[in-house]
Amino acid sequence: MATQLPTFADLLTARRRLGSLACRTPLIEHPALNARAGGRVLLKAENLQRVGAFKFRGAYNKVAQVDKATYPGGVVACSSGNHAQGVAAAASLLGLRSAIVMPADAPRLKIERTRAFGAEVVAYDRVTEDRDAIARELCATRRAALVHPFDDPDVIAGQGTAGLEMMEQAEAVGAVPDVVLVGASGGGLISGISIAVKEKSPSTLIYSVEPVGFDDLARSLESGAHQRNAALSGSICDALLAVTPGELTFEVARRNLAGGLVVTDEEAKVAVRYAFEELKLVVEPGGAVSLAAILSGKLSLRGKTVAAVLSGGNVDPHLFAEIIQERRQAA
Amino acid sequence: MATQLPTFADLLTARRRLGSLACRTPLIEHPALNARAGGRVLLKAENLQRVGAFKFRGAYNKVAQVDKATYPGGVVACSSGNHAQGVAAAASLLGLRSAIVMPADAPRLKIERTRAFGAEVVAYDRVTEDRDAIARELCATRRAALVHPFDDPDVIAGQGTAGLEMMEQAEAVGAVPDVVLVGASGGGLISGISIAVKEKSPSTLIYSVEPVGFDDLARSLESGAHQRNAALSGSICDALLAVTPGELTFEVARRNLAGGLVVTDEEAKVAVRYAFEELKLVVEPGGAVSLAAILSGKLSLRGKTVAAVLSGGNVDPHLFAEIIQERRQAA
Repeated sequence: MATQLPTFADLLTARRRLGSLACRTPLIEHPALNARAGGRVLLKAENLQRVGAFKFRGAYNKVAQVDKATYPGGVVACSSGNHAQGVAAAASLLGLRSAIVMPADAPRLKIERTRAFGAEVVAYDRVTEDRDAIARELCATRRAALVHPFDDPDVIAGQGTAGLEMMEQAEAVGAVPDVVLVGASGGGLISGISIAVKEKSPSTLIYSVEPVGFDDLARSLESGAHQRNAALSGSICDALLAVTPGELTFEVARRNLAGGLVVTDEEAKVAVRYAFEELKLVVEPGGAVSLAAILSGKLSLRGKTVAAVLSGGNVDPHLFAEIIQERRQAA
Repeated sequence: MATQLPTFADLLTARRRLGSLACRTPLIEHPALNARAGGRVLLKAENLQRVGAFKFRGAYNKVAQVDKATYPGGVVACSSGNHAQGVAAAASLLGLRSAIVMPADAPRLKIERTRAFGAEVVAYDRVTEDRDAIARELCATRRAALVHPFDDPDVIAGQGTAGLEMMEQAEAVGAVPDVVLVGASGGGLISGISIAVKEKSPSTLIYSVEPVGFDDLARSLESGAHQRNAALSGSICDALLAVTPGELTFEVARRNLAGGLVVTDEEAKVAVRYAFEELKLVVEPGGAVSLAAILSGKLSLRGKTVAAVLSGGNVDPHLFAEIIQERRQAA
């Protein structure tokens, strides 16, 4: 492989680069959740991050290193949503132009917010068009740099800063996680976090969590080779639809992860509703899969300490309204 | 006055008594909100507190001091909601029976949750019945202790622990608040917090925030004597409907507060929606009035540091769904 895998030192550099621009999101522990899990649950609330998701970390760490003379056209990114907002916000802070190639069926809120952060949105059809080709053409004609959503060492290192904080915050409350749970799409967040976790606590078991039908990472880990999802859309977890793990992210994941868990859309909805009712947090379905894995008992956590990442909160208000009212209507 | 006013030392004692049972809720700073306010905004997220509101702090500090031999019937409380949950949870943790006198028109979620914490709910009519008389009778027949929602030095000291944490957390991020904003009903939270704030930073200006029509504290502060609200119900801020400040809370407030601000129901709704969209926090209307005062520009905050308390998140899902969808339907 030509590109070197990111290291713990890269995470520390990324943290210095981010400075105070990324929020040091809280690590939340709630008695009701501890009681329910039968152990100690620490939630890294990256839904409270700038732009409403962890994505700002990796995007900023990458975009800050884009040379304006070489790339006068700024940056281009492909994203179903949160990466778009991360790149748009980072570019805006750094005084660079940004164009985001987004699926036409992305949640309206994410499209609107991406524009609000100052980006130009270029829409494409998820089924018939090739977003990578569109992005490559934009980069060539504009002399712009592509910011990959996950398969880039600087992006991975940036996302990993969430893991650095999480482990330090856990230590500050006297906890060493036995288990770490992180949702996965292309694997940028979980691979970055895994570097921090393994440096601080080599014996901690790290599991990815994916939606049913989009468990490419779980199957890739099990088979030892890249697996692809059959479908391109169809889960409520719209942030977790990447078709296959990245080259770099899979290399990191296969070294550091214990395995991959899978949750249903219904389990993700239960987690969104639980976060609303008990935790008072707004979490999007794709951001709630780690909590869903806890609530639905995918692992026995009795007597254990688990750290889980709530990775984003950019949920369409109509969908959120539907989810939080569902059980009460049924009751 | 027979009862002594709570002191800073009482807050420290309350904190020791609470130990790790109350969550150390995060102090949240968000770039989008700073930009909007033109200053630095620090939000003490007591909506993330155990039971979904700050009320657990004061309730536990009080109930922990109830002598079981003298009061074999446990505790009784009157509450429109969050105090009920606080007392129920505290009593349950301490092995005491609890009965809560609640208005029949309280949000269904709050009634359900109060029962879920193990309390007996005694319903009354807010307009025709006297809840205090009902509570006194329960106390007499059951040999139970009354836990007042705000006018009790132990309750005030317990709520004040939120202010202790807030000032310490602000200091940890290099901030000293110029202004502190806290919603007020009977005034337990704001009077408790004011003791911590004035001890740590005497020059900080503290303002209460109340809903229009329920601004008894603002008018009492201005006139120097207890004022009462004309209405008993009718604001979306169902947590902030106390008719007049307490004796103790008003004594503390008149010493420590700079004045009282007032927000409309519409301004409270805008704050609830903003917390959902930008901050990814679930805040109930009454818990969002301090944020509402910031967003609606009740004070000039340009270049200033303001600390504001989000006091609760126990909002009915149907109401929350309505609020978060409102602007988008209009758009």
